[in-house]
Amino acid sequence: MRISDLRLYPIAIADPPLRSSYGLHAPYALRTIVVVRSTDGIEGVSETYGGDGPLAALESLRDRVVGTDPFQLTRLWLELSAQAEPDRAEAHGDRTQTWLLPGENPLDRHARSFAAIEMACLDLIGKALGKPVCDLLGGRVRSAVPFAAYLFYKHAGGGGEGMDSREDEYGEVLDARAIVREARQMRAQYGFREIKLKGGVFDPDQEIAAIRALREEFGPSVPLRIDPNCAWSVETSVRVGLALREELDGGGYLEDPTATLEAMAEVRRRLLVAGVATPLASNVAVTCFEHVAEAHRLDAVQIVLSDPHYWGGIRHVQHLSYLCHALGMGVSMHSNSHLGISLMAMAHAAAASPYLTYACDTHYPWQHAADEVVLGGRVPIVNGEVHIPERPGLGIELDYDQVARGVERYRKLPYRKRDDEAEMQKRVDPSWRRVLPRW
Amino acid sequence: MRISDLRLYPIAIADPPLRSSYGLHAPYALRTIVVVRSTDGIEGVSETYGGDGPLAALESLRDRVVGTDPFQLTRLWLELSAQAEPDRAEAHGDRTQTWLLPGENPLDRHARSFAAIEMACLDLIGKALGKPVCDLLGGRVRSAVPFAAYLFYKHAGGGGEGMDSREDEYGEVLDARAIVREARQMRAQYGFREIKLKGGVFDPDQEIAAIRALREEFGPSVPLRIDPNCAWSVETSVRVGLALREELDGGGYLEDPTATLEAMAEVRRRLLVAGVATPLASNVAVTCFEHVAEAHRLDAVQIVLSDPHYWGGIRHVQHLSYLCHALGMGVSMHSNSHLGISLMAMAHAAAASPYLTYACDTHYPWQHAADEVVLGGRVPIVNGEVHIPERPGLGIELDYDQVARGVERYRKLPYRKRDDEAEMQKRVDPSWRRVLPRW
Repeated sequence: MRISDLRLYPIAIADPPLRSSYGLHAPYALRTIVVVRSTDGIEGVSETYGGDGPLAALESLRDRVVGTDPFQLTRLWLELSAQAEPDRAEAHGDRTQTWLLPGENPLDRHARSFAAIEMACLDLIGKALGKPVCDLLGGRVRSAVPFAAYLFYKHAGGGGEGMDSREDEYGEVLDARAIVREARQMRAQYGFREIKLKGGVFDPDQEIAAIRALREEFGPSVPLRIDPNCAWSVETSVRVGLALREELDGGGYLEDPTATLEAMAEVRRRLLVAGVATPLASNVAVTCFEHVAEAHRLDAVQIVLSDPHYWGGIRHVQHLSYLCHALGMGVSMHSNSHLGISLMAMAHAAAASPYLTYACDTHYPWQHAADEVVLGGRVPIVNGEVHIPERPGLGIELDYDQVARGVERYRKLPYRKRDDEAEMQKRVDPSWRRVLPRW
Repeated sequence: MRISDLRLYPIAIADPPLRSSYGLHAPYALRTIVVVRSTDGIEGVSETYGGDGPLAALESLRDRVVGTDPFQLTRLWLELSAQAEPDRAEAHGDRTQTWLLPGENPLDRHARSFAAIEMACLDLIGKALGKPVCDLLGGRVRSAVPFAAYLFYKHAGGGGEGMDSREDEYGEVLDARAIVREARQMRAQYGFREIKLKGGVFDPDQEIAAIRALREEFGPSVPLRIDPNCAWSVETSVRVGLALREELDGGGYLEDPTATLEAMAEVRRRLLVAGVATPLASNVAVTCFEHVAEAHRLDAVQIVLSDPHYWGGIRHVQHLSYLCHALGMGVSMHSNSHLGISLMAMAHAAAASPYLTYACDTHYPWQHAADEVVLGGRVPIVNGEVHIPERPGLGIELDYDQVARGVERYRKLPYRKRDDEAEMQKRVDPSWRRVLPRW
């Protein structure tokens, strides 16, 4: 079996006006749908970051991918890694997501591109062999993968514009009371048993109040996490950590309170001195295997957020889970705006990773059924879990009519790159700049 | 596809009178051949540690293995790991190979048993799908796996006894000159391009002389390693490291010079202070994922010797290679007396592990063609390499007549457990005791 064709579909999907320390989500999120087709006519699919950059990066791999054996992935990884070195030198080495949005750092480009190919090849192999992806990787440790409610502050309305707008049921969410309402709605619909609040948007006292309101509403059996994406100083991070010592206890965590591993380590030290053991998590400062050792050495991070999309695929999430377990670190999973293909890739990665013990993040509730490219519609999340179906590969097929609609939306868009700061300036405050730390 | 049968064949194979700090190899080494048979009549095989202990440990898993899906391995790993905990508490926690021979520590029993099942299942899956094992694991990073010449001090004659004795071509090897002759013979026959000397047998000055003689004979293009299995004090280890600073340079290493990670760390510190960067390797102090972090933290070990047989299978060697790479540590591979099935399992593990960059150890030259259980005879080692054949699974089939002969030899043996100290007392010196450190 060889790969006879690689097809790339750049799509746009409606995305609500969600806020974070990076700024504001634009009316459309960009994704790329990747299809590898085998000489026997079987198709493997994956979904990854969108826009012209990721598309061009994948396009540049066409000659390396077409004609090759989909089982031979590790060699491709080593080739792409080796070639990433010059880039790294040019960019003076900040391979994090501190300054650039996930999906935008050129130093991770090879890992993202490889991941998109790997996930599509694993789907292809699974379909060729009649096996679910997780069972190709040593077998599942769970058949139902828990995800967390991912709460955002947001402006009114859903995503999209004009004919394509998708009103959402959450409306404007700009204070603690609305956050609790959002959480209730999301839990009612999906059954999530853990909750994450995307912070870094308002004054930390307001966000402390939001977390406290969530704890009051749902009680201590629902673990809580807050993620301000580095918006805070060390001082503020410690202050929030102390204030929320009870609320983030019992399975919760404090994610990327401040920028850089050194500053995270200082936050950790000060919290420990004060008797607060709330673990610090990161998907900003720790984005690749090279970062893990340093994060561990400094005790800057106790939980690493994996993500098959930029860690280099599903097998790398498995490797990361063993690595973190060996170092006594926890593993969770990061998410970006995505559709059902990514959700299934994440679910298979989690199902096959023994030491991934936190509910995974997912933006899935923020996307709309009208944009789903999975045949048969949205992947169900029931009791907060995605079930691994007894179907081969990732367990989904592409709805090409829906893909075509996504491509059409993409074609019409005036932008080809995610830029939350520009969007914030355009829609909310022309003088807005991303400043770290803001508080 | 389900596993319908598990068959265990305890065998004995001739083994020459090889010396190490553990004592003397007995005339027969013990191995267990494991066969899993699927409901479709396909067989997967593996080879592991022998004797009554390993046999009973595998036998105790029969009910967990028969009737299960050979793809569902990770769950079995987690179950066995969880049940290993009580053992660990009982044994007060020294899960190393310092005091007990590889294969004998009860704290690693679950990892060894799981590995034997995992390797047989991977062979079965490969045969069912028509794919070589390494290509089921992300694909090979090399199609030819380099092994090292594994030199031993030894007494005259080959292994076995009476009708079953297998004279070897190496004769008595008890000094530097004979070691060079042994190396020449082994290189001529197998083409090895790296050399390991099993030390810890004679006064360190004699072993320093042997390494120097090897360097003189083969020049700096042939990397050298020496492994006294903890026979030396910190002082002696440092002295040898300084004496061999040039000879172990350029791809060589100093393996387990002394017992315990703390003492290895002290050796490392003193060597570095003296400007000697020879890396320290270990298969004695580092035998499981839990040890790696501590070895790294102390900088006690710079190269970890993997081994699918006790690290928990072929996938674990892959995970270990990513772990060590992330920590900036090297990876090599350990070996025990074995036949061609283990050789192929090791070759597939190395082929699928991107960051395993040293030639693997192998005892294979010390075993005899008459004892091989692989159909068609011994696996060839050419130019020091084992080629991954384009055959499914591990690439070998069992010769059941040969297995029966091995079982018969086992039945006749008066011992059921490796005991190099007893053998040393019996054959060489009744007063001999394993003392650490000896020098």
